Amino acid sequence: MKTYIEQNKDRFLSELFDLLRIPSVSADPKFKGDMRRCAEAVKESILKAGADLAEIHETPGHPVVYGEKIIDPALPTVLIYGHYDVQPADPYELWETPPFEPTIRNERIYARGSCDDKGQFYMHIKALETMVATGSLTCNVKIMIEGEEEVGSDHLGTFVRENKEKLKADVILISDTSIIANDVPSIEVGLRGLTYLEVEVTGANRDLHSGVYGGAVANPINVLCEMIASMKDENNHITIPGFYDKVQELSAEERSLMNEAPFDLDEYKRDLAIDELEGETGYTTIERTGIRPTLDVNGIWGGYTGEGAKTVLPSKAYAKISMRLVPDQNNDEILDIFTKHFLSIAPPSVKVVVKPHHGGLPYVTPVDSVEYKAAELAMKEAWGGKQPVPTRGGGSIPIVALFEQELGVKSILMGFGLDIDALHSPNESYGLFNFYKGIETIPLFFKYYTKLKK
Amino acid sequence: MKTYIEQNKDRFLSELFDLLRIPSVSADPKFKGDMRRCAEAVKESILKAGADLAEIHETPGHPVVYGEKIIDPALPTVLIYGHYDVQPADPYELWETPPFEPTIRNERIYARGSCDDKGQFYMHIKALETMVATGSLTCNVKIMIEGEEEVGSDHLGTFVRENKEKLKADVILISDTSIIANDVPSIEVGLRGLTYLEVEVTGANRDLHSGVYGGAVANPINVLCEMIASMKDENNHITIPGFYDKVQELSAEERSLMNEAPFDLDEYKRDLAIDELEGETGYTTIERTGIRPTLDVNGIWGGYTGEGAKTVLPSKAYAKISMRLVPDQNNDEILDIFTKHFLSIAPPSVKVVVKPHHGGLPYVTPVDSVEYKAAELAMKEAWGGKQPVPTRGGGSIPIVALFEQELGVKSILMGFGLDIDALHSPNESYGLFNFYKGIETIPLFFKYYTKLKK
Repeated sequence: MKTYIEQNKDRFLSELFDLLRIPSVSADPKFKGDMRRCAEAVKESILKAGADLAEIHETPGHPVVYGEKIIDPALPTVLIYGHYDVQPADPYELWETPPFEPTIRNERIYARGSCDDKGQFYMHIKALETMVATGSLTCNVKIMIEGEEEVGSDHLGTFVRENKEKLKADVILISDTSIIANDVPSIEVGLRGLTYLEVEVTGANRDLHSGVYGGAVANPINVLCEMIASMKDENNHITIPGFYDKVQELSAEERSLMNEAPFDLDEYKRDLAIDELEGETGYTTIERTGIRPTLDVNGIWGGYTGEGAKTVLPSKAYAKISMRLVPDQNNDEILDIFTKHFLSIAPPSVKVVVKPHHGGLPYVTPVDSVEYKAAELAMKEAWGGKQPVPTRGGGSIPIVALFEQELGVKSILMGFGLDIDALHSPNESYGLFNFYKGIETIPLFFKYYTKLKK
Repeated sequence: MKTYIEQNKDRFLSELFDLLRIPSVSADPKFKGDMRRCAEAVKESILKAGADLAEIHETPGHPVVYGEKIIDPALPTVLIYGHYDVQPADPYELWETPPFEPTIRNERIYARGSCDDKGQFYMHIKALETMVATGSLTCNVKIMIEGEEEVGSDHLGTFVRENKEKLKADVILISDTSIIANDVPSIEVGLRGLTYLEVEVTGANRDLHSGVYGGAVANPINVLCEMIASMKDENNHITIPGFYDKVQELSAEERSLMNEAPFDLDEYKRDLAIDELEGETGYTTIERTGIRPTLDVNGIWGGYTGEGAKTVLPSKAYAKISMRLVPDQNNDEILDIFTKHFLSIAPPSVKVVVKPHHGGLPYVTPVDSVEYKAAELAMKEAWGGKQPVPTRGGGSIPIVALFEQELGVKSILMGFGLDIDALHSPNESYGLFNFYKGIETIPLFFKYYTKLKK
């Protein structure tokens, strides 16, 4: 297989470049035609790789591309998930070379979508081609590449629910995450869930003169600040009753393994230009972002925020608050207990409204599962015997929990990007090393998964 | 005198109407010509009232009108202060009758400036005319009517400093405040001072992804909320060290007198649509707004404040904070101790900046002073024996402290407006009762002041 990849590497790259030249920006209606063109190109590439079938499924938004190669229904099935849509590229003037004219510099591919996610999902299509061409495909493959990941995957839930039979698989393989470094392979085993809401605190029925009423009438900004402050104690532990009830405590061994991941505290602080970190007492930075839930105010506003001074005692204050959740917290339950608590701590001098925004379940891949073991062995072999590190990224990918819920299947987040790839930013790039290493590693996953699953 | 007022009441009103027809809006450059025309009209009215002298003083902004009638240098001198500029009248469409076409409805004069302050300072000019015409002027009179009160009196400080000799007086009489009700005369004896500032809290050097960094890096909004919350204890007592050091504690007797002012708690709450008041434990609402200092957030902002949700861990959070001060707190000292305290409570995970906006000293008229006694006797006589109530309005009029500082003279705030006058709002009005009652009361102040001062 390595020989096949080596012999075809220039063509693989040039095909990816063709895909990167299509400005498939899902957020902007003016690229609607390009989105369609891109879906067609993805479908064609799946067929060319040797699939039995590839088709475009319409949705009320952008289409989903589906393909499959079933070699034996008795064998396990791997479902590949990826997305062909990309983030908007503006501001264009900050790009060193145009976002939709892929360019190689310093052994890296510069283009919008080079990593997120065209570069990464295209590795799977080339891996499939390689396995088919070399007769080494060991199980069935299904491929689902959507066009709305960057705008919230609004129609994917319906598509998945309506196509459960078609999408039936034993494991979902996703490359949309990063490794720690090119010489430190890693696999993302946890995603945090999310409860996002907005609160509104109302004092008097109108803005008041702070001289005439100040001191006698509740100031909703001061009250909101007090309510927010009261939700964490001096150890940055969240004080909402029941908040931690379902939080999985990891074993000392698991925590120790997690903390073996390389982490340079000085570099981390220097990059953010901060003197000190701040987080829950008793946990490391890796643990605070990986296995512990959080409560952050994402936005706050109220009163006079223009130039100069206005002595107003405002009627209202608002905040957007989100909580990152970890297994086994449930985002709906957390919304409930937050709401109950927030209403209970409101003083009688104000009225409070809690408005839910959205949420998602946390997700975790057990490191002793067959799925994880297969990924671990694949990476270890591809990296010449180096053991990959299980990591928990802290972010949330709601579709992963959705897949588990609707299809009853675990996902493996075996991504090949790096932190320096500048996803969503100008000058997004993807290393050539990473692109080819992915194509080399994916067939190994198939091999080990089939072997372990038997 | 009452006869003279009665005989001339229609002319007094028609002269005031002429003044109200001039749109003397100081904030808007398009009314510059009207401002000049208004200053001329005020000068003419002072001369016609019987003054020896009236003149227009240029400033870098709008002119100050000055007049005087010196009957005997050995007698006391009363300096009248007022302002001929008015607030902008927009939104015009909310006025029932045009703002610069004065109209009588329900025994009230409707026009921009009818109360604030043309109606009120013109009472003094008509009172002077009455005293001169009836040979009852008992002391010297100086009159200073400025044109920039509604835009911050920017050039009055310089004018006062440069004309200390000319403005030499024993007391300053100002009608730019209210009485409790037409059957409850009152005199404003206290104004709160003000320290207004802005704070900026910075965490990381850029907005971060709340999933990737949340829990490990300080959130400046959460930190700002905690800092604000920590500055008041559970009794709504301000916790900044030294904050109360110079606060004058009133005697039980003074507090008891102050609380005799009519105050309907249910009506107050109904008007503001609140279930409960909130303020410093151990003080009544009248005390909380009158004799106690406050700390209010006038505005707060940071992070994502648009529609929907964004999972940002912001780099910065801001608040505008003001403190109302009472005697003998000094606004510069309070700025200093606030700043020191705020910096001291900032955790090492953030950087904090405190930016001063503006401030003013608190002011109080001792109720046992000759000045107050004269006002009290005048009102008592005009109201048929009803004792006026000393009130503390809670607001700030920085020029009053300026007069005391520069001229060494106390001010008497004997205003005749009502809360319903809608100052600064559409449909501003002033009661005919109040206009004539003022013209009747002012000569009584002169009489009693001369008598007591001898």
